[in-house]
Amino acid sequence: MANSRYEYVKQFEKENYLLQDCYIIIRVDGKSFHKFSSHYNFNKPNDEKALEVMNLTAEKIMNKYDDILMAYGDSDEYSFLLRKSCSLFDRREMKLITLFSSLMSCYYIYYWQKLIGQLDEDHLPLFDARAILYPNFNLVRDYFSWRQVDCHINNLYNTTFWNLVKLGLTPQESEKKLMGTISSDKHEILFKECDINYNNEPEMFKKGTILVKQFDNYEMQSNNLTIRQKQRYDKKLKKQSIIVKYHNDIINDNEWWNNKPWLKD
Amino acid sequence: MANSRYEYVKQFEKENYLLQDCYIIIRVDGKSFHKFSSHYNFNKPNDEKALEVMNLTAEKIMNKYDDILMAYGDSDEYSFLLRKSCSLFDRREMKLITLFSSLMSCYYIYYWQKLIGQLDEDHLPLFDARAILYPNFNLVRDYFSWRQVDCHINNLYNTTFWNLVKLGLTPQESEKKLMGTISSDKHEILFKECDINYNNEPEMFKKGTILVKQFDNYEMQSNNLTIRQKQRYDKKLKKQSIIVKYHNDIINDNEWWNNKPWLKD
Amino acid sequence: MANSRYEYVKQFEKENYLLQDCYIIIRVDGKSFHKFSSHYNFNKPNDEKALEVMNLTAEKIMNKYDDILMAYGDSDEYSFLLRKSCSLFDRREMKLITLFSSLMSCYYIYYWQKLIGQLDEDHLPLFDARAILYPNFNLVRDYFSWRQVDCHINNLYNTTFWNLVKLGLTPQESEKKLMGTISSDKHEILFKECDINYNNEPEMFKKGTILVKQFDNYEMQSNNLTIRQKQRYDKKLKKQSIIVKYHNDIINDNEWWNNKPWLKD
Amino acid sequence: MANSRYEYVKQFEKENYLLQDCYIIIRVDGKSFHKFSSHYNFNKPNDEKALEVMNLTAEKIMNKYDDILMAYGDSDEYSFLLRKSCSLFDRREMKLITLFSSLMSCYYIYYWQKLIGQLDEDHLPLFDARAILYPNFNLVRDYFSWRQVDCHINNLYNTTFWNLVKLGLTPQESEKKLMGTISSDKHEILFKECDINYNNEPEMFKKGTILVKQFDNYEMQSNNLTIRQKQRYDKKLKKQSIIVKYHNDIINDNEWWNNKPWLKD
Repeated sequence: MANSRYEYVKQFEKENYLLQDCYIIIRVDGKSFHKFSSHYNFNKPNDEKALEVMNLTAEKIMNKYDDILMAYGDSDEYSFLLRKSCSLFDRREMKLITLFSSLMSCYYIYYWQKLIGQLDEDHLPLFDARAILYPNFNLVRDYFSWRQVDCHINNLYNTTFWNLVKLGLTPQESEKKLMGTISSDKHEILFKECDINYNNEPEMFKKGTILVKQFDNYEMQSNNLTIRQKQRYDKKLKKQSIIVKYHNDIINDNEWWNNKPWLKD
Repeated sequence: MANSRYEYVKQFEKENYLLQDCYIIIRVDGKSFHKFSSHYNFNKPNDEKALEVMNLTAEKIMNKYDDILMAYGDSDEYSFLLRKSCSLFDRREMKLITLFSSLMSCYYIYYWQKLIGQLDEDHLPLFDARAILYPNFNLVRDYFSWRQVDCHINNLYNTTFWNLVKLGLTPQESEKKLMGTISSDKHEILFKECDINYNNEPEMFKKGTILVKQFDNYEMQSNNLTIRQKQRYDKKLKKQSIIVKYHNDIINDNEWWNNKPWLKD
Repeated sequence: MANSRYEYVKQFEKENYLLQDCYIIIRVDGKSFHKFSSHYNFNKPNDEKALEVMNLTAEKIMNKYDDILMAYGDSDEYSFLLRKSCSLFDRREMKLITLFSSLMSCYYIYYWQKLIGQLDEDHLPLFDARAILYPNFNLVRDYFSWRQVDCHINNLYNTTFWNLVKLGLTPQESEKKLMGTISSDKHEILFKECDINYNNEPEMFKKGTILVKQFDNYEMQSNNLTIRQKQRYDKKLKKQSIIVKYHNDIINDNEWWNNKPWLKD
Repeated sequence: MANSRYEYVKQFEKENYLLQDCYIIIRVDGKSFHKFSSHYNFNKPNDEKALEVMNLTAEKIMNKYDDILMAYGDSDEYSFLLRKSCSLFDRREMKLITLFSSLMSCYYIYYWQKLIGQLDEDHLPLFDARAILYPNFNLVRDYFSWRQVDCHINNLYNTTFWNLVKLGLTPQESEKKLMGTISSDKHEILFKECDINYNNEPEMFKKGTILVKQFDNYEMQSNNLTIRQKQRYDKKLKKQSIIVKYHNDIINDNEWWNNKPWLKD
């Protein structure tokens, strides 16, 4: 019984090698988390514990793969930045994205059970994942700005919506009231009707969470090294790298970006 | 703060819609399960409980999605057959495969904890996944033959290898002894040195596990129905379908295939 | 000066291998042939000589490649059917489609100059090309039906439009008059106002041109041959094949298709 | 007769939109030009008239499309650089590459007939084409270096080979003599045996042909303009652009590149 007779079916398999010298962003996204969050009675508009589970999961994944330099997350999604020279799985798209969705489920469950408790058979945390290629760093910055704007829009809406519900409106009434409103309208409703100054809301809710792999004194020390010295240096650095958590504005703060030149590497 | 300014980065996202009217096979595969199996002290050559976790996971996934009609698995891999008219996620490859790797991790963990026990943070069950297109059913049959031949080859090798180790050989000695042997040599080593008749080994180990979504009296009843009647009928059937488990030879048994005409639908 | 230092840029090249065991249809389409046809004063609605150039070009291309079994064309487009086992250029999509667009330009120019005359530098016959995969022959038949319906719709419109123009209407008046009309309206306008019975129009204009690579007595002789005999037979046949031209209905005529079983091979 | 019943087959068509913000290089390559060049008795190692036909063809194509900023060619191949913001055909790969192979055939025939004469039915100039994406300009420079190194290696070999043949060696003897020789060996054979100093060979043969779309005073004038002014200015410039031909070293000459900053745009 030779294997070869049927092995030809393997020729129907296809690989997509992601274009080299492009930044890779992998975005994972919770599947049906609306239902998931009601089943487990998440606090609304934001559940701090559930967000912590997401953040711990993302941090764990970053620690497992050197090529991940940064991540941004809010709600049930996270975006990971892989360095443009990344050669994990030879940049095979299928391997990369299925690994990430699998990692998300594994560690989400792990930290959920540690921090929160039981999970029910028909309500497990599923994630999809996609890879996106960006040929230059300006696009990477705009990508993260896009996600942070999205976080802001959603959070402002949800904060207003749920506080109206707390005041006694039905979800339908609350939705109707917010229809057609712009940002400043929502700020005002919150302030006047709910006695909430949106600006004082927690930064994590308003800005999302930014995780950065940080290398101390990177700039100072890495200049004037030969390539081989630099590689050895990078290896050493890796072990010394730590992941720092931020909740700041990454849209307009050029200095914040300029202080982390290794992200562009 | 308009969303539109940064939204253009979304244009860099790409979808791959899997060619219509082709059967889709999604194969999931455990990541580094060699290490995983030593960490949790799997029985060698086969750990019945771990295989049961795999089988329960696959069955659960089949039950969640009507489009999965059959699955075949052995060791740390499983292949799912999706009907050729499947329109799950509009046949978007990334959505499909990342969902499957995520499902595998979720339910593997769930059933592991139910049947076996704890899982350690750095040894969680990761899976990758890939989708393969087959334009006709002969190719589908050859695909499953390919996997079953592979199961046989690996299991015969592993059974001989681990029984030699039980006899006192080191793994290196055992490996060396098997180098260059063909199938009949291994049968003989097993029989003469280990007192094992390979043919009496459990069918699940030798043939893997086949799961089929079965519809009673499908053939008899589905003839001579209009398309609309058939759709209604299929819906009804769906609720009545059950998943049947086999460990038989699916390479040569034409009758087994012919009795399940809905697999070709 | 070693080549290797820069050769790495070759890694950015990508191939797309067309899925095996699928029929390949390559459709070529004239670029800006509206302008082309006015520049060279084509007869309207159909220019018989220009169509002959297209047909000769398609026939020549069919003769060059054994894998092309059939072609269908009308106006400035042609669709070529390649057998599903075709392995030309290892089924590399880019090679196949750029060859076809190049072939079209070369032979169009060649036959144009032979039958019609000069071509002007800024009005040369450009073609684009695309490859489409069909997993089964029913789809192939529906594809050609789609093109023939399209031919019919366009030709009925154009015949009515240009005959109204001949009667003295401006193009704008003619277009306006036809707006919102259905098939039977156009038949009636042609009959009552232009004294033309559309059914008597030339079949080539109404149905397009079908080219089929024909093998005499194929069925009778090819039965009961071993595969090797069949291959030898196919080789012999190839030399004996001729291309037959049709202008018949290929949408409803099952017998026409059934008489050409080799098209499915 | 509604079109819709068969139109569904159109869903099997696929587009590949080339990643934005990447440079596109389209390389066209003569098909079987070895045979083509013997049929038309090209001068060996280089036929100046045939190269002129290639160069005129490439120049014509550059003039038709604003997005082509540069081209490099030698022998029967040409590489065209399209600006990274190019949106021709919405960057649809199939449209782009089939257009280029078609353009090559059309204009090659046109200029051949003008400069050289007749073409025979079975020896027409066919071209294939491919598109390659480069995310940054360093890669673009390395790409052109790769092609120029290739030109050099081939031309040195061919010059030596054909001059040995002129001396009376058979092609086989000549090939055998060159086997295993390095660059300096060939220089010496040429010098000592054929009385040829390779350095004095025509630059077009040794370096290939570089075509650049040149804009006078581009740098000086384009600074400090608003985007809208710049667009208007670019439009005006376009009409004023001319194509300049070079045969220089583009591998090491940084200044040559630095003087053409618009190539990076």
